[in-house]
Amino acid sequence: MSDPEVFDVAIVGAGPAGLAAGLYTSRDRYSTLILEKNGLPGGQIMLTEHIENYPGWESVGGPELVQHMVNQVHSFGTSIRTGQPVTALRRRDDGVLEIEIEGGSSVYRSRAIILSPGSDYRQLGVPGETQMRQAGKVSYCATCDGAFYRDKHVLAVGGGNTAVQDAIFLATRFAKKTTLIHRRRQFRAQKILIEELYEKAGENNIEIKLPYVVERIVGDGEKATLDHVEIKNVETGDVESLHVDGVFIFVGMVPNTAFLKGFVATNELGYLECDTTALRTSVPGVFAAGDCRAAAPMQLATACGDGVTVAMMLKEYFRDPNWWAAGAAEAAGERGW
Amino acid sequence: MSDPEVFDVAIVGAGPAGLAAGLYTSRDRYSTLILEKNGLPGGQIMLTEHIENYPGWESVGGPELVQHMVNQVHSFGTSIRTGQPVTALRRRDDGVLEIEIEGGSSVYRSRAIILSPGSDYRQLGVPGETQMRQAGKVSYCATCDGAFYRDKHVLAVGGGNTAVQDAIFLATRFAKKTTLIHRRRQFRAQKILIEELYEKAGENNIEIKLPYVVERIVGDGEKATLDHVEIKNVETGDVESLHVDGVFIFVGMVPNTAFLKGFVATNELGYLECDTTALRTSVPGVFAAGDCRAAAPMQLATACGDGVTVAMMLKEYFRDPNWWAAGAAEAAGERGW
Repeated sequence: MSDPEVFDVAIVGAGPAGLAAGLYTSRDRYSTLILEKNGLPGGQIMLTEHIENYPGWESVGGPELVQHMVNQVHSFGTSIRTGQPVTALRRRDDGVLEIEIEGGSSVYRSRAIILSPGSDYRQLGVPGETQMRQAGKVSYCATCDGAFYRDKHVLAVGGGNTAVQDAIFLATRFAKKTTLIHRRRQFRAQKILIEELYEKAGENNIEIKLPYVVERIVGDGEKATLDHVEIKNVETGDVESLHVDGVFIFVGMVPNTAFLKGFVATNELGYLECDTTALRTSVPGVFAAGDCRAAAPMQLATACGDGVTVAMMLKEYFRDPNWWAAGAAEAAGERGW
Repeated sequence: MSDPEVFDVAIVGAGPAGLAAGLYTSRDRYSTLILEKNGLPGGQIMLTEHIENYPGWESVGGPELVQHMVNQVHSFGTSIRTGQPVTALRRRDDGVLEIEIEGGSSVYRSRAIILSPGSDYRQLGVPGETQMRQAGKVSYCATCDGAFYRDKHVLAVGGGNTAVQDAIFLATRFAKKTTLIHRRRQFRAQKILIEELYEKAGENNIEIKLPYVVERIVGDGEKATLDHVEIKNVETGDVESLHVDGVFIFVGMVPNTAFLKGFVATNELGYLECDTTALRTSVPGVFAAGDCRAAAPMQLATACGDGVTVAMMLKEYFRDPNWWAAGAAEAAGERGW
């Protein structure tokens, strides 16, 4: 019985990091398998209506940009297999890697793996949230979308470091007014950030309301307009309507790495541990790219950069498997990389 | 006398890394100064006729892509100052950074600096080289341009690790025939690579000619066609004409960092030393991005990724200057970065 096909590279997750990696490995004529758990490639960026910070595209929608990336991968002969949730990974004694799909329906084999499953923003789970996200009125990233709210009124939601930092960022750089709500009486953020928040609140028109939660986000999905947000005081039960131009939800991120526990090392938040020079995980032949990895800057351009970095570093591993154990400078080779 | 303007950020070098950084810092409404030594922004990519490996663009010319990036920066209110060669940099005791332009004509001040001067490919300096580069027939990067030479005959030039590795790469993945020449009787590459070269030469149609140099590259610039390459045996003086489809010159890279010596730490090859998580150089407030830095993968997408990474990390430095001394995990903060 002949051994089933062993791909040169298997990529787990077809968001921008995985597609960028697949573009390079396919163009370099490595046999490339791209697996995506969802029915469509693209990942989180598919939910982004309007992108103006991807270098080289003045303005583009998430799905349109993904389509270009998919076309590129296709043009070098690689197809993307959707609806393929990976449930188990193994490294055999001979170094071949095995990937099992849910239900045991398929087992794929490859010489190297690029893990690019991404991270998801944690959602509130309230009515209207998903619809208004698609309408571009609910955001989970101040750097990505703050610039769309210059001289507008925004609602920020959350109580951790990111929530407090990014509420200050929105208020001091863009918004005319920023309302910040949190479900508890006290913020969870570091003391120094809370002090900065209260110091800057007056001058920057930040209104802080505690303890409040979002009940509903109300708007017209078809017209892509937000009408108001219903917020509730959790102590008194009083509900009020807030008329804002946008909602920023800062309640955390969840890396999509649960299926990788026990296979590669993760940090306490679930992000994949790797060296930031060559993006090598704890398992030889297995790289990490994009928002799933520790220390990722979580931007579209940095995810693409990661994918390309891994595709370059992969060649060093194929040339010499002992390269995996090399230090950063050595790993990067003679050209400076 | 009032203090002259102190910019939030000064960016030295307006190639893709600098433009990506400037897009982010401008969009975040940090006052941004972009300095470019040449008369036009874009850097090395301006010399690239045909790009098909930048994620999101199936096919684009270097100058066109640069124009989009420049438009993006402009749209957020930042202009690019060209013809501004930086000759000296200083960090004052109060942390303000100073940048001096050639001839002492101007001194700029900023709170942070992003160094993105790029690297240049070392050239042979032979007649026809520049013209045929612009015609897309002379390349300095196998990963970038190898895919354009599927089933073609290419000439590779050089004797170091990169030359030998990339000649093998071209021969095994793309070219129908690869001629490799080097000016000495022996390659300078590692023994293991030379062995691999000779092992694979027969099966992959690699012809090795030693000791040979390129005399002239002959073609029609207007029609963007290459006719032949004249190569000379340096021992006998005999000249022969080689009819090839493209020329790959692998004689090294030179980071454009001579003006930075004594200001920030560089490695033995001249690349800027930095941590690969936050791209911090040896001087607080001074970041490195793109092909100028140690361990850069030297690709368009990775340069853009660097620029964006720095723009994200900058905010940590502005929030707390002591962040500079933090370790990688700490520097990356709570979201995983």
